[in-house]
Amino acid sequence: MKKRIAILGSTGSIGTQTLDVIAAHPDEYEVVALAAGRNTALLAEQVKRFRPRLVSCIDEESAAELREELISSGLGYKVEIEHGEHGLLQVAAHAGADMLITAIIGARGLSPTLAAIDAGIAIGLANKETLISAGHLVMESARKKRVPIIPIDSEHSAIFQCLNGGERREVKKIILTASGGAFRGRSREELVDVKVEEALQHPNWSMGAKITVDSATMVNKGLEVIEAHWLFGLAYDQIEVVIHPESIIHSMVEFVDTSIIAQMGLPDMRVPIQYALTYPQRKSGPFQSLDLVRAGKLHFYEMDEERFPCIRMAYDAGRCGGTMPTVFNAANEIAVERFLQGQISFLQIEDIIAEVMNRHTVIARPELEEILSADEWARMEARRLFA
Amino acid sequence: MKKRIAILGSTGSIGTQTLDVIAAHPDEYEVVALAAGRNTALLAEQVKRFRPRLVSCIDEESAAELREELISSGLGYKVEIEHGEHGLLQVAAHAGADMLITAIIGARGLSPTLAAIDAGIAIGLANKETLISAGHLVMESARKKRVPIIPIDSEHSAIFQCLNGGERREVKKIILTASGGAFRGRSREELVDVKVEEALQHPNWSMGAKITVDSATMVNKGLEVIEAHWLFGLAYDQIEVVIHPESIIHSMVEFVDTSIIAQMGLPDMRVPIQYALTYPQRKSGPFQSLDLVRAGKLHFYEMDEERFPCIRMAYDAGRCGGTMPTVFNAANEIAVERFLQGQISFLQIEDIIAEVMNRHTVIARPELEEILSADEWARMEARRLFA
Repeated sequence: MKKRIAILGSTGSIGTQTLDVIAAHPDEYEVVALAAGRNTALLAEQVKRFRPRLVSCIDEESAAELREELISSGLGYKVEIEHGEHGLLQVAAHAGADMLITAIIGARGLSPTLAAIDAGIAIGLANKETLISAGHLVMESARKKRVPIIPIDSEHSAIFQCLNGGERREVKKIILTASGGAFRGRSREELVDVKVEEALQHPNWSMGAKITVDSATMVNKGLEVIEAHWLFGLAYDQIEVVIHPESIIHSMVEFVDTSIIAQMGLPDMRVPIQYALTYPQRKSGPFQSLDLVRAGKLHFYEMDEERFPCIRMAYDAGRCGGTMPTVFNAANEIAVERFLQGQISFLQIEDIIAEVMNRHTVIARPELEEILSADEWARMEARRLFA
Repeated sequence: MKKRIAILGSTGSIGTQTLDVIAAHPDEYEVVALAAGRNTALLAEQVKRFRPRLVSCIDEESAAELREELISSGLGYKVEIEHGEHGLLQVAAHAGADMLITAIIGARGLSPTLAAIDAGIAIGLANKETLISAGHLVMESARKKRVPIIPIDSEHSAIFQCLNGGERREVKKIILTASGGAFRGRSREELVDVKVEEALQHPNWSMGAKITVDSATMVNKGLEVIEAHWLFGLAYDQIEVVIHPESIIHSMVEFVDTSIIAQMGLPDMRVPIQYALTYPQRKSGPFQSLDLVRAGKLHFYEMDEERFPCIRMAYDAGRCGGTMPTVFNAANEIAVERFLQGQISFLQIEDIIAEVMNRHTVIARPELEEILSADEWARMEARRLFA
């Protein structure tokens, strides 16, 4: 029987790559439900090709557009079209799905992920906020329902794969690799006048503008540290970050016997996406093998917290816990948005995060609503600063 | 209950390191039987410290020496002392043992390993000849008796650990790393006048003279390729060798999804020894962790078969199969012996191997006696050449 897949964010980078992987294994996977934003043209194509039973758009207008598009092209089967928060939840907890790929960005991913877990649907996790903001709720709920949470991020997928090498209690520490981002070689002085276009040059992965800036500030790695804490149940002292410019070793686990297991490969997000789909098996796919001889050299540098203060702030936020990681993430999102709009300088991103964290009164074990209001509060505070 | 260990070759490098590991975990392991060569002083110390029920020396004279030594020091318990082939077999198949560590060198390891498997005793494999010469007999016997064969060599232990990352049928290939030996940077012209002392400088591991020469000729890696073939049931096309001078990545497995799992660490044979003892668990030990930042760089170079013809000869011997790998190994042993005695030049080692292989008439699926006589024949032939 085919494994039935639902996707939140099907028209985004991870969403389209997930569909690529599914298209490469038509006998193994079936798409049952898709949720997307406003790219109705692409969503219509996806519907025609993968024939899900249910699709959801971000709002009523997009849903109407999609309906029209599908009718005019004479779709040969009946598809249910929903929209908004309600539609998102229906896609997430679709009764016919075996696995949900959470590839939407932002706090909007939280409720649908919890709904899917509640419905006993396995999660292929690509929505950062889920664990950053609600790690305690998500992991507890997944444990209770015995629902596997399989990471799709390349670093976490690497750790997840390396953990096959031993028991969880045998883990001494994990080592997340960081490319160092666009400005790895620069001193802080050289970062003062950085332009938006410069920040958008990521050396190894082609990604969106937001995450490319997050790589340069090291906020992205900081968020991954917090995710790893929840995903693998590790103390922050057990999570290290090392700079590895080639991004060939995707991450590593050191076991108690000092044996380090690493996962390596060319940068291709479809590999961890496919692993989430095929887990615990592996299948061949249309991917290119790493040629280590051609790569020639792998370099490793210390993560310098003076040079990258955001990494320290992320550890601080994680150790503080409660609503603080939500605030760290939300403040960063607004700061990056303002940087990309040319309203603040590159180094002011970290100032905004630090200041908003500083002003925040933490709630220790927040419920979903408290998380969402901390998120909103942090965004407001971040917008006010340097206005 | 303690795991009961027997060791063949307890006074050698792997043997003493095995006892170091056991000494670090006195509540977990118990030594029940030891076999050694002529180093009766060290063997006596080991008996006093680990109190095995049975020991065996290489011959009657050594056994008498040991008995005297133990009597004069007033050993407080009764130990059985044996010697020769008979004693070796008794230690190997000791009824009280859960695991046998085969750390003796040469074809002498063959019969006792088969005897242990027959007695249902798990094997910690450190005797190369076992799989080189009798891989077909050993693996078939182990399969029938459901006896695990756990490799102790650092490369094979690495592969064994990486294979936890997926199923055997999901393996695309394995990549054995080779330091490149003492003469990695030299051309063949520069190898003509190599001196014995130069050949004995191994860059990363401190080992015996024979294996250090085997690293420089790449015969050692070639033997490891043949061992890997048997140990992991892989075709020779699935086994690659890459030169990695730092010896930090001990070896790698590429799975069908292009994901590569690597095992890394500082060069310390006690780590794979301990893994063989604790498998499938891992335990902490008195080992130093790898600091990747301090290592800084890892390099990878192509294995050049023109530069290292012995590696090609090893693949040829392996693919030919039957008695050919035995001949490859035996001819090399004599050639290295003669090189170390200053009788032939460094490059003549490969000439001798090639010539003896050339003269050999292969037996396809040899029995133990045929293996031993092929071994003897190859040694005689090798001695005759350049005499």
